[in-house]
Amino acid sequence: MLLDKLMNKLDEKKERIIEIRRYLHEHPELSFQEEETAKYIRNFYNAVPVDSVETNFGGERGVVVMIKGAKPGKTIAIRADFDALPIKEETGLPFASKNEGVMHACGHDGHTAYMLVLAETLAEFKDQLQGTVKVIHQPAEEAPPGGAIGMIKAGVLDGVDAIIGIHVMSTMKTGQIYYRSGNTQTGRSYFKLIVQGRGGHGSSPHLANDAIIAASSFVMNLQTIVSRRINPFDIASVTIGNFDGKGTFNVIKDAVTIEGDVRTMSPETREIVENEVRAFTEGLEKSYGVQCSLEYSNDYPVLHNDPEVTEQVRQALEQASIPEVEAVLETPPLPPSEDFAYYLEKVPGCFFYVGALPESGEAYPHHHPKFDINEKSLIISAKAMAAVVASYCDGSEA
Amino acid sequence: MLLDKLMNKLDEKKERIIEIRRYLHEHPELSFQEEETAKYIRNFYNAVPVDSVETNFGGERGVVVMIKGAKPGKTIAIRADFDALPIKEETGLPFASKNEGVMHACGHDGHTAYMLVLAETLAEFKDQLQGTVKVIHQPAEEAPPGGAIGMIKAGVLDGVDAIIGIHVMSTMKTGQIYYRSGNTQTGRSYFKLIVQGRGGHGSSPHLANDAIIAASSFVMNLQTIVSRRINPFDIASVTIGNFDGKGTFNVIKDAVTIEGDVRTMSPETREIVENEVRAFTEGLEKSYGVQCSLEYSNDYPVLHNDPEVTEQVRQALEQASIPEVEAVLETPPLPPSEDFAYYLEKVPGCFFYVGALPESGEAYPHHHPKFDINEKSLIISAKAMAAVVASYCDGSEA
Amino acid sequence: MLLDKLMNKLDEKKERIIEIRRYLHEHPELSFQEEETAKYIRNFYNAVPVDSVETNFGGERGVVVMIKGAKPGKTIAIRADFDALPIKEETGLPFASKNEGVMHACGHDGHTAYMLVLAETLAEFKDQLQGTVKVIHQPAEEAPPGGAIGMIKAGVLDGVDAIIGIHVMSTMKTGQIYYRSGNTQTGRSYFKLIVQGRGGHGSSPHLANDAIIAASSFVMNLQTIVSRRINPFDIASVTIGNFDGKGTFNVIKDAVTIEGDVRTMSPETREIVENEVRAFTEGLEKSYGVQCSLEYSNDYPVLHNDPEVTEQVRQALEQASIPEVEAVLETPPLPPSEDFAYYLEKVPGCFFYVGALPESGEAYPHHHPKFDINEKSLIISAKAMAAVVASYCDGSEA
Amino acid sequence: MLLDKLMNKLDEKKERIIEIRRYLHEHPELSFQEEETAKYIRNFYNAVPVDSVETNFGGERGVVVMIKGAKPGKTIAIRADFDALPIKEETGLPFASKNEGVMHACGHDGHTAYMLVLAETLAEFKDQLQGTVKVIHQPAEEAPPGGAIGMIKAGVLDGVDAIIGIHVMSTMKTGQIYYRSGNTQTGRSYFKLIVQGRGGHGSSPHLANDAIIAASSFVMNLQTIVSRRINPFDIASVTIGNFDGKGTFNVIKDAVTIEGDVRTMSPETREIVENEVRAFTEGLEKSYGVQCSLEYSNDYPVLHNDPEVTEQVRQALEQASIPEVEAVLETPPLPPSEDFAYYLEKVPGCFFYVGALPESGEAYPHHHPKFDINEKSLIISAKAMAAVVASYCDGSEA
Repeated sequence: MLLDKLMNKLDEKKERIIEIRRYLHEHPELSFQEEETAKYIRNFYNAVPVDSVETNFGGERGVVVMIKGAKPGKTIAIRADFDALPIKEETGLPFASKNEGVMHACGHDGHTAYMLVLAETLAEFKDQLQGTVKVIHQPAEEAPPGGAIGMIKAGVLDGVDAIIGIHVMSTMKTGQIYYRSGNTQTGRSYFKLIVQGRGGHGSSPHLANDAIIAASSFVMNLQTIVSRRINPFDIASVTIGNFDGKGTFNVIKDAVTIEGDVRTMSPETREIVENEVRAFTEGLEKSYGVQCSLEYSNDYPVLHNDPEVTEQVRQALEQASIPEVEAVLETPPLPPSEDFAYYLEKVPGCFFYVGALPESGEAYPHHHPKFDINEKSLIISAKAMAAVVASYCDGSEA
Repeated sequence: MLLDKLMNKLDEKKERIIEIRRYLHEHPELSFQEEETAKYIRNFYNAVPVDSVETNFGGERGVVVMIKGAKPGKTIAIRADFDALPIKEETGLPFASKNEGVMHACGHDGHTAYMLVLAETLAEFKDQLQGTVKVIHQPAEEAPPGGAIGMIKAGVLDGVDAIIGIHVMSTMKTGQIYYRSGNTQTGRSYFKLIVQGRGGHGSSPHLANDAIIAASSFVMNLQTIVSRRINPFDIASVTIGNFDGKGTFNVIKDAVTIEGDVRTMSPETREIVENEVRAFTEGLEKSYGVQCSLEYSNDYPVLHNDPEVTEQVRQALEQASIPEVEAVLETPPLPPSEDFAYYLEKVPGCFFYVGALPESGEAYPHHHPKFDINEKSLIISAKAMAAVVASYCDGSEA
Repeated sequence: MLLDKLMNKLDEKKERIIEIRRYLHEHPELSFQEEETAKYIRNFYNAVPVDSVETNFGGERGVVVMIKGAKPGKTIAIRADFDALPIKEETGLPFASKNEGVMHACGHDGHTAYMLVLAETLAEFKDQLQGTVKVIHQPAEEAPPGGAIGMIKAGVLDGVDAIIGIHVMSTMKTGQIYYRSGNTQTGRSYFKLIVQGRGGHGSSPHLANDAIIAASSFVMNLQTIVSRRINPFDIASVTIGNFDGKGTFNVIKDAVTIEGDVRTMSPETREIVENEVRAFTEGLEKSYGVQCSLEYSNDYPVLHNDPEVTEQVRQALEQASIPEVEAVLETPPLPPSEDFAYYLEKVPGCFFYVGALPESGEAYPHHHPKFDINEKSLIISAKAMAAVVASYCDGSEA
Repeated sequence: MLLDKLMNKLDEKKERIIEIRRYLHEHPELSFQEEETAKYIRNFYNAVPVDSVETNFGGERGVVVMIKGAKPGKTIAIRADFDALPIKEETGLPFASKNEGVMHACGHDGHTAYMLVLAETLAEFKDQLQGTVKVIHQPAEEAPPGGAIGMIKAGVLDGVDAIIGIHVMSTMKTGQIYYRSGNTQTGRSYFKLIVQGRGGHGSSPHLANDAIIAASSFVMNLQTIVSRRINPFDIASVTIGNFDGKGTFNVIKDAVTIEGDVRTMSPETREIVENEVRAFTEGLEKSYGVQCSLEYSNDYPVLHNDPEVTEQVRQALEQASIPEVEAVLETPPLPPSEDFAYYLEKVPGCFFYVGALPESGEAYPHHHPKFDINEKSLIISAKAMAAVVASYCDGSEA
């Protein structure tokens, strides 16, 4: 079977995956600025017998690689993201970031590393492939609007039958793989509200219109969205992360800027929250006589794994009997949002999770300055993705 | 001088004033129900040489008495109110209320007593009067819309040049008289808001629309009217005295009724508060998607003493040298509202205060079940009002 | 097999189940007052060859019936509740409640009807039973503290290996059965807060301490428990169903009573909510200088179905191939609370749901004056429970 | 009489006052940094026959000048302040500020100009003075803790019988002088509250403790101080001028800083507000589990004019018949605070107001970038202060 050959080959390249990961870790780049990383990826393919390599895909730094099998069949897209975060690394690793203030604190270095080596391996066996594998190296997963959206507009999903992605998870045990069918990661919305009152002197409040009070009332009212408008059996959070009412103690504040973050687990809940935020904004204007300017945007959608594809992924993973994998388990839904969700709006697919808890047993969460992964998760990711690809595209005569 | 004769005569009738007051105290009647009191007043005048007695003035139980002087001159109205309160008396006085649950707890019994005897005395001296004294016995001062409004509509102020009223005050020292020019007692507004949401089961808040939360938010927002919309140098209070959200613990409340009381010291402030209550109501509908029904009524106006009349009152009181009066003093503005304010919207006048602190030195406030007055305040009231009348109408050849 | 015999027998008695249910429906009794219903149940067993019937079990009107099989084995408890609700029936059914203001609006009439006939049938086949069936007729499920608690204290679970219960559901399709493993129905807590301020006159707020404002602030603060303190992936609701601040518009309210209902889906969440309500109460005292008296009680626990028992139930139901049952499905967790949860705290068991959507296809929710069930659900319940019992106690030689 | 001579002499120096004022206006200096202004003042006295000039009085840049009369008598202190404000001037005047971003936008340039020329004139006539005039040139009136406090500690009021101050007012008609007895300008308090919660990710509020919500609740609760705790007939305002909750939209804010300004018109009210702010802070900690650090300081006291001194001032002003003055009027209390109040806590005195509405009839308020005064107010101030001094110290034989 193809899968056995792929796994053997990947085993040989285990150390190279780690080397690539460490190189990328040392050279992180921020979302929408991943110039050198994109070049690195592109150059990697120079010596690889793939069918095509497209760069600057979607106006940004996406790299799309085609590997066509000898026999016709389905087209499977597999995606890895490669941007880093504006975080000052504090891991003390020998291969820590050399780009001060930028850090691969979410594992995208690992995603790219395993994906490059997997792609190379798949290309080496393309005579035994049935169908096509489209490798998507995606930039800018971390920063809205996200890199996926541009690549989709540029046609990256044209002809794709299913799309698969992996995230390594420092908080999940190494050796375990987690999947979930249906709504799996939250959708995200963003809003910015400017509450415009009228400044004045603290001793004469009646001549002013105090924006801080109006905005405080808004914050309190907003709590009722989650507490009363959302089904307790649904999932939603509404956070005001920015309340900029900086001013002078004895001057009544003329304007306040508020920014909020919304997480929901279904399109219906997302809509309820938006409607409520709009209603409270309108109510604020009427109540306090302030002028409100609300900017509300729906950002990464709810990540919805297709049940059929997810079942196929689950079976492929279980049947693969990857030696490093001790269990394939269902995960409860996960709080963060992920722009892979945009692909899943267009084609069926599955995004699943590879445990990467460090040997120490102590995990720093993603986006933490001390975030680290167990590098064993990289060979596991490569083999797991190989197993899924093989389940669609095994063209070998066993 | 006329005043000396009036004062001597009143001194002779001192005890009768007290007797009448005690009789009335024993037989209190609620606002708009003062049948027996009105009869008592009417009958009192049977033996008095007044020029006319009109009863049921203004559709209610008002009694209006004309005393025309021998010489032409100004028409001075003097007013006493005669209704009692729905309070269970706890004074333990020998002449305590015999009408269970009803009590003269605001001194109107005293007002009526001194006024009857003063009117009788003025009638006895009418050959020495210049001009006309119109005695207004007014019902229903305590209960909106108040008795004054009906009597005014029925023409009680026709031809009146000035109107004067007195209130005995248990909280002011006996022997002192207080006056104030301009805005003196607060105006009052009343509102009733029904917040209509949608009921439901406690475990499914998203299917209901919780009226208790909307109403609570309204109460909190309302605090900003006084704290931010009113000039700190102005006077206003807004009280929610009723928040009827009685219900079952696990059933989301469908509707809440709120009732409020507003006190202001100028028509401008009154208008600001009304506008703000309306704005917050509108804002509540938008914010919480509830239906609001607001009933807002402006009740007793701000009591505004005419500066000229007040100055004449002040001078008359000082020059009268009433032996029982030790000082005539300016009072700061007073919190309660008073329907005498309606007369003052139509004709110039003055409402002033006669100290009635009990001998004990301990005062129960007006409307308290143990409220009592120093009965010395009654002869003082009679003489003080006589002094003011004489200042307008002395037709005697000194 | 025993099950086939039970099902055949039950089919013969189908109409009798309905008759009994209708009789009970006509004669509903409130929780803790079910005198006649308990007698009815007791009398039913007069002619039935059960091993024992205990009445007034647990101090209340519980009836416990033992059916001992010919062979030794496990002891399975099966429970049906029999109280009704303080609701005025509006169904217009020919067998509508004859007890004005009381109604079987939650299906307990049906539970009791199928259980009686099932118990009788099991007794008839007890020579083919292995182990013991303990039939629990429980009163007072609807009203805290619930009837279960007393029966447990009185030893109803002594020797019981597993306990099974059924609820008919007007909102689930007839012909479907729903189960769930783990936390399935919410736990409930109740609290009552008296906020004691100090009364006063509306025009002098500084002399009083306005309890309505303090209580409104409490209500607003409370919203943050669900919005911020609870994991968005957990389940909780906090409802203030009673805000009793009834008063007079111009009198500052001295005290307000608040009553609340809490639903949670795990003991941890339950504890968080209680701690937060206590913290906000303490904060209210400090903030507003009011005296608070808080009564907080944890009521029905989270209903936790034992995974092993639930799996056995699921298999039994599927293998039974009950002709009236088209599907056995997993249900998401359910909002209401249920005192069966108390049994499940003591012994493993499973509470499951039998669809009872009326033929019309239009369901009135439980506790609605027009609530009704499809009576087909009764024979389904009997057979489903028979299947579960048989899976534990089939002593027949097939 | 001395006054006539003073007034004549001042008339001669009218233009010099204006020159000095314009020079100072061109060279404004911020509070506590008035180096050049202090030198200018000091040098002015080089050629003036005063008895002493002390500089750097009180550790800051105060200048104190003694003018001893020929005859013994009372010691009268007269005070002018000389600091400017951090405001970018927009008047377009030919003598506009040359110190970018600093402006005499409150008239202290005028105060100093008239005072210098008045002091010179008094010195010229000191043989006709009875008693002593102490001229206080005070720095840093605009910035807490104010310059007065240091000068008082250093003994500036030693031996002083009364102290008099003037403020020119752009908003009062030129030609009018305003006085008020008793509490006249508000006292001020300042507070700073740091609300320390715990940061976290927007999608996991339960792991954080949202400081923005706690702070918003605090702001709403604070409104009830003015709305419910303060006698509606008293004066108070509480302003939150700074709500610094600047952060990132999807990160739960760990800490918020709030700064507030309190104005009151009596020491009792001042204390109530402080107690309430402390209570709400304590309540916030209990309610939201945040750590609060509150800094509360009572700043400039209520400015209380001594009734006797004020009456003497009033009479002196009326009897002086200053030709440029058309009326001497009572003013209602004024919202701003003023550090002259510190002097009045120690010795009796009076602070009064000289109208300085520009010719145009259009006034920009104090502290406005376009603030300007009518320079006629300067000769009026000089003559008015001369009149008051003469009323205490006329030692001429008329």
